[in-house]
Amino acid sequence: MDPSAEALTFPPSYAIQLEPHLPPLQPTSSSGSSGGSPLPTRPFVTLTFATSLDSSLALAPGVRTVLSGAESKAMTHYLRSRHAAICVGVGTAVADDPGLNCRLSSPPGQPAHHPRPVVIDPHCRWDFTAEAKVLQLARAGRGLAPFVVTAVREPPEEKLQLLEGCGGRFIYVAAEPGAPEPASGDGAGSTRLRWADVLAAVKREGLDSIMIEGGGYVINSLLVAPDSELIDSVIITIAPTWLGQGGVVVSPPRTIDADGKPTAPLRLTNVSWHPLGEDVVMCGKILR
Amino acid sequence: MDPSAEALTFPPSYAIQLEPHLPPLQPTSSSGSSGGSPLPTRPFVTLTFATSLDSSLALAPGVRTVLSGAESKAMTHYLRSRHAAICVGVGTAVADDPGLNCRLSSPPGQPAHHPRPVVIDPHCRWDFTAEAKVLQLARAGRGLAPFVVTAVREPPEEKLQLLEGCGGRFIYVAAEPGAPEPASGDGAGSTRLRWADVLAAVKREGLDSIMIEGGGYVINSLLVAPDSELIDSVIITIAPTWLGQGGVVVSPPRTIDADGKPTAPLRLTNVSWHPLGEDVVMCGKILR
Repeated sequence: MDPSAEALTFPPSYAIQLEPHLPPLQPTSSSGSSGGSPLPTRPFVTLTFATSLDSSLALAPGVRTVLSGAESKAMTHYLRSRHAAICVGVGTAVADDPGLNCRLSSPPGQPAHHPRPVVIDPHCRWDFTAEAKVLQLARAGRGLAPFVVTAVREPPEEKLQLLEGCGGRFIYVAAEPGAPEPASGDGAGSTRLRWADVLAAVKREGLDSIMIEGGGYVINSLLVAPDSELIDSVIITIAPTWLGQGGVVVSPPRTIDADGKPTAPLRLTNVSWHPLGEDVVMCGKILR
Repeated sequence: MDPSAEALTFPPSYAIQLEPHLPPLQPTSSSGSSGGSPLPTRPFVTLTFATSLDSSLALAPGVRTVLSGAESKAMTHYLRSRHAAICVGVGTAVADDPGLNCRLSSPPGQPAHHPRPVVIDPHCRWDFTAEAKVLQLARAGRGLAPFVVTAVREPPEEKLQLLEGCGGRFIYVAAEPGAPEPASGDGAGSTRLRWADVLAAVKREGLDSIMIEGGGYVINSLLVAPDSELIDSVIITIAPTWLGQGGVVVSPPRTIDADGKPTAPLRLTNVSWHPLGEDVVMCGKILR
């Protein structure tokens, strides 16, 4: 049997511990019409990933690395069942050919919830074909086709057709001010999108929550203030292994205080730790 | 009140969870005379330290960094009460001027147990005076004077007298084969001692257990096979903060497999995770 078709289960007793760290079960977008707080301009953002003890996501760039255990894998799919969208950077899309669907068993008679894949690809560098796993799953009704967020105004016609043919699309977001308009497919380009713009675009698509999963570049860029303030919830799995020097490390750029001394760039608050198999799951919020 | 004089308490309900990961309460050195297994040639070795989420011990080399919470500090002192010796490298001795004693409140009428500080200093680089905290504590009866393990055959006379005057000593261990005999006080020297030799020397002093606490150089050197097989127990505290790039990182050198691909250098087994305040404590053994 294709292991990517295997259905996973996640114990409700564990799921209930995660609940305070997840987006609300009922969308709250109607709250604006009651005259109360204004409509949110971005989705609920969960930053979630798995690292080794030495904070590595993978042994080396582009090397898919099995790190956490079976229970943690089931948790990832539970999180996918609880978010409207799932976000990865183009590097992960290229290196891993990920499925980005939800393989959690759903109760009888209840259709599976799949998150909308959102791929951040400023230069339209992702050279997908009809055989990309995420597109195969979408065509088979076992996942959704991706929304590709890009700063390229006119993506290549054949990619456009491939995406739209299975329900996906390109979403144009202007590059950060001062950055050059990128050329399509420019792998060496360094145009960045602003997180606030990306998240506003996601929200405009009606997606009320998004889990940001990887890879290293995407995660580290979100851990830089003030963008880190866009994160509502952090859920990190730590596996009891060292991947060693040279891995893809999660560690934000260092910050310095007024005296030029290094300070901790980010601290978490409302922290809880939940052992899961041989791993541990940390839930928390960025301290503001 | 001097904060270094503050007495700490550690809840027995938590201590009991650590027990399987600690040296036996009754020394087993008599087991050899019963005709059973041979006498051990090294002490029980616990590797223990606290890191950030990005596996840093400190913001930068030589910068003392408060990382873990009050509860974790009390645990460190509980561990000190349960080991015959505590080991740091010369870098930590120089940078932190550590006390290396046990500040855990002892039951009424029961004398405090202090671990024997063991400082690894191949070149006799540690330029301590009578004011070094560890020597002050020894003279005050609130700790033990250090054993300094060195490859220098004849340490400077004034250091020798200072150490021996409060119950410490130098322990000579030959440098690893091929290394030059170091000159005393040679700060730039790179002579290494072999862990097996250091631990054998510690055992010959009648010390049946040792916790190895830091710093980065000492920890990373012990995480390299085959030396990693000398570790009996690993107890790591993780604090929910990122220290950022440029910190003193725990991460062993990368290893590669027969095909030249990177592999995980070390994995842990018999792992348990124990939340402690805002931190988590991981206990485990190196998988062989």
